[in-house]
Amino acid sequence: MTNYCIIVAGGSGSRMGTETPKQFLLVGGIPVLMHTIRNFYEFDPFLQLILVLPETEISSWKILCRQYQFTIPHQTIAGGETRFQSVKNGLLLVRECDLIAVHDGVRPLVSHKTLKRCFESADKRGSAIPVLPSNESLRKGDMDESVPVDRSRFYIVQTPQVFKAAILKNGYKQSWITEFTDDASVVEHAGTPVRLVMGNRENIKITFPEDLIIAELFLKNR
Amino acid sequence: MTNYCIIVAGGSGSRMGTETPKQFLLVGGIPVLMHTIRNFYEFDPFLQLILVLPETEISSWKILCRQYQFTIPHQTIAGGETRFQSVKNGLLLVRECDLIAVHDGVRPLVSHKTLKRCFESADKRGSAIPVLPSNESLRKGDMDESVPVDRSRFYIVQTPQVFKAAILKNGYKQSWITEFTDDASVVEHAGTPVRLVMGNRENIKITFPEDLIIAELFLKNR
Repeated sequence: MTNYCIIVAGGSGSRMGTETPKQFLLVGGIPVLMHTIRNFYEFDPFLQLILVLPETEISSWKILCRQYQFTIPHQTIAGGETRFQSVKNGLLLVRECDLIAVHDGVRPLVSHKTLKRCFESADKRGSAIPVLPSNESLRKGDMDESVPVDRSRFYIVQTPQVFKAAILKNGYKQSWITEFTDDASVVEHAGTPVRLVMGNRENIKITFPEDLIIAELFLKNR
Repeated sequence: MTNYCIIVAGGSGSRMGTETPKQFLLVGGIPVLMHTIRNFYEFDPFLQLILVLPETEISSWKILCRQYQFTIPHQTIAGGETRFQSVKNGLLLVRECDLIAVHDGVRPLVSHKTLKRCFESADKRGSAIPVLPSNESLRKGDMDESVPVDRSRFYIVQTPQVFKAAILKNGYKQSWITEFTDDASVVEHAGTPVRLVMGNRENIKITFPEDLIIAELFLKNR
């Protein structure tokens, strides 16, 4: 059966302090997003890849693909104002299929073991959200008033978040609310509980300049 | 006035998968702990440094110091079963002073800006806990059942945690309870609220093998 992966790359470079959208920044001489796409392609060349980009970046992406002779097959569609709208737009390109994964474009380092866990678990149990236990102490509140929390009860959420197609599509029929921070929260709000699986430490979301250097290092050591 | 820093290095190599305690693992050819001690010394050469080590590791540490010609002045004392007991043992070496910092031995990368914020804020407001906002989504619960949480309300806790001497000493007069995961929680349990300051992204706690490589990179780029 066909599976899809929607790669969401709608971010800007604001926290990076760069003009270039972060998904186009170079890691090991190649735009981050190409590493991400290649990683999924190498995991499963039959996976249907849908790339969601800000409308204004689609032509730049096409130029980059020519420039880097990047030929891994994928479809491209314009995103929306929110991540929710971007995933929804991505879903427009999804035909009949079994599983749909949604992945952050700036996570080039999800391991194939994590991917295997995600797709297998989603196939068996309907959904799979990769997480890691927190190895740092956490506090809840704001800078003025906060309380310690039991970190053993908290998980750091990664992507890809993988779902049976009907479950994900059903979630994205809802109207957007601010609580929709990822696909798990969308699906849960529609009444379907989600299942967690272990992610991997290297699966960082490139957000700050130092993350680019770390990603480069991890890619070299892979 | 004199300030102290208690550097707690009581950990084992269990999560590292190594025989060597993680504080002795090499980063850029030098044991992590030496980077940490040097960092504080370079920030303030008058800071009194107290190193708490497992009793069984003290002789190894002295051998390492000779081997690496490590001459930065510091006192050494044996730790206890828990982090709480280790800090308590460290406090035995503290004479009259103004501020006391408690720091994880495996955090060699706290920036001097963070240190300045911590010591200045503790001086003014009694305590300073360096934290970072979480840039990852979080969930609360366990692998079987979990709920999303509002990540904007959560902070990742770092060290050094710095306190007016009387506040910290008062906290460590209490009997140990499992909720004592760091110095902030000890001090709060004694009835003193703590103050947060911004930490820095590079200030990672070396926990997993990949952290050694990241730390090496950050040290090079400093």
